[in-house]
Amino acid sequence: MDDARIKKLQRGLTDCLLIDNPVDLLYLTGLTLSVGRMALFPDRSCLFVDARYIESAKREAPCEARMKQELVSYLQHAGQVVFDSSYLTYDAYRAMEKNIPGKEWTPVSKPLKELRAIKEKSEIAALKRAARLTLEGYRHIAGLLKEGVAEEELALEFEIYCRRHGASKLSFQPNIAFGENSAFPHYRAGKDRLKKDQIILCDLGAVVDGYAGDMTRVMFFGRPDPQLERDYRLVQRVRDLVAFSIRPGIRFGDLDRMAREELRKEGVDSLFTHGLSHGVGLDLHEFPTLRLDGGDADVRLAPGMVITVEPGLYRPGLGGVRYEDTVLVTEAGVENLTC
Amino acid sequence: MDDARIKKLQRGLTDCLLIDNPVDLLYLTGLTLSVGRMALFPDRSCLFVDARYIESAKREAPCEARMKQELVSYLQHAGQVVFDSSYLTYDAYRAMEKNIPGKEWTPVSKPLKELRAIKEKSEIAALKRAARLTLEGYRHIAGLLKEGVAEEELALEFEIYCRRHGASKLSFQPNIAFGENSAFPHYRAGKDRLKKDQIILCDLGAVVDGYAGDMTRVMFFGRPDPQLERDYRLVQRVRDLVAFSIRPGIRFGDLDRMAREELRKEGVDSLFTHGLSHGVGLDLHEFPTLRLDGGDADVRLAPGMVITVEPGLYRPGLGGVRYEDTVLVTEAGVENLTC
Repeated sequence: MDDARIKKLQRGLTDCLLIDNPVDLLYLTGLTLSVGRMALFPDRSCLFVDARYIESAKREAPCEARMKQELVSYLQHAGQVVFDSSYLTYDAYRAMEKNIPGKEWTPVSKPLKELRAIKEKSEIAALKRAARLTLEGYRHIAGLLKEGVAEEELALEFEIYCRRHGASKLSFQPNIAFGENSAFPHYRAGKDRLKKDQIILCDLGAVVDGYAGDMTRVMFFGRPDPQLERDYRLVQRVRDLVAFSIRPGIRFGDLDRMAREELRKEGVDSLFTHGLSHGVGLDLHEFPTLRLDGGDADVRLAPGMVITVEPGLYRPGLGGVRYEDTVLVTEAGVENLTC
Repeated sequence: MDDARIKKLQRGLTDCLLIDNPVDLLYLTGLTLSVGRMALFPDRSCLFVDARYIESAKREAPCEARMKQELVSYLQHAGQVVFDSSYLTYDAYRAMEKNIPGKEWTPVSKPLKELRAIKEKSEIAALKRAARLTLEGYRHIAGLLKEGVAEEELALEFEIYCRRHGASKLSFQPNIAFGENSAFPHYRAGKDRLKKDQIILCDLGAVVDGYAGDMTRVMFFGRPDPQLERDYRLVQRVRDLVAFSIRPGIRFGDLDRMAREELRKEGVDSLFTHGLSHGVGLDLHEFPTLRLDGGDADVRLAPGMVITVEPGLYRPGLGGVRYEDTVLVTEAGVENLTC
């Protein structure tokens, strides 16, 4: 990996920035570290690691690499030091403040979030591979449906299929929900067994080359309550409406408003109890993210952003439906990475 | 789950304790929550969750359960509030301090660590199942050794074997290291392929019913350098020496000193570059832990503690050996959970 990302980040700096989050360190250096700290100034940068990583860091990092003990002297002339207050624990912050005296410590939450939100070509390719493998894994378990199969059995078969076909791990523990369980948006596959005429909701994701897949589909095993089929058609219509509206410059929150307005016309907007979309990348959930209370609603979409579109409707005691794709914002509008 | 653990924890309290770490919340309530906060006073306790979890929390938690918005009023009469400073981020701490004014905030790192260190019967049973499945998985991949197999292929087969036989996940990404790779104590299985006359180091763990397995073995594929075989015999001797010395009341650090003295007699103590032991439980690494710079060396072992014993010797450029079991401290001395 070259130092292009480091250079981009340096352009926005006035003094010193410390990076501790291993996902950010992976993004900047290409190295997988359980612990490490990077210091960036406008004109220099250095990765600090312990004895475990020093040899590989010196060989492979696209910046200088030193033993962690040398951080204090490296920061000698720094005045203001920005740190990631969403990642550092209270203890880690206090230790740093004590061990590196005389600095003006400035908390910033997720300092790389804007940089990481705009995906490069190689990242988009990895996200495509993750999305495709996720879809393949879904099709694999769709072929295993039969009366009596347990949610967690399907979850395990999905995991094994994805691992055997190139996933390093899953993006999250599968949400495979039979019947009423589908009414819980954050359900995790359990011991329930499939019965005739049940709805099956599958929210799945495989990680390929570090990048997360994320998709949701619903299947009908026999003839579940017709209301759920109507809900699923409505949710698909909302998904199409939103997807075709995605283009650079649009306000992120307008997508959410659009979806809820469409549901309101049918009188079911109160059944859509979570955010419509979130960024996807090295993390399953990353900037920007829509939440019921707003979140990053004011962000303008830009080419290179990869986000989910996931309208859903949940009827407690009956069941729930959700349709979710991962899509790329392009110059021309949008490209669906899931299919 | 009953409220016995909560009651034990309450006995040590003078005012209010907040628990945020989901592993601690699982330990206290039996509930798997991605986010939650528990408030404990000497005479009352309550779990605060969001809408996702409120129904299951009210049904299943061994204490009161309320919506998270009610925390502020619940803490109304608290003066000093202890929080887990090893878990809360800087941002989370600041938000709490701002939203709940007028308290004396007291940072304590891992407030449950002593309680969790002494395992109950049901926990020991789960740790045994995890240790046994880990050993079975190791034997499974030992049967797959052949020239040309990749480290990561064995790692995947270990994972699939364990998942199919009751593991919810692995304790950590397997360290399966061929040849020189074994000289890195924290190696992760990669693309290297097995050649004749290589050493194979396997550090493996499966999670069963929430509890982590952890063991290391070395195999010799053909005839590696005889030095490595001598090293492995020495490491096994050290392991026996340590294991037979474990008993209630012994100072944890004395085990480490004993191991290093034995290695010093052979002039190789400088090749043992990590701590000898750590606690194992719901977390792979938990209290107490030995580190090169001490760690919890002053802790006295007590019945119910479950720890690893893992002496190792690492020769850069040649290879490394380590032998690791998970053992239980008993009234009578020690019981090996691995075999």
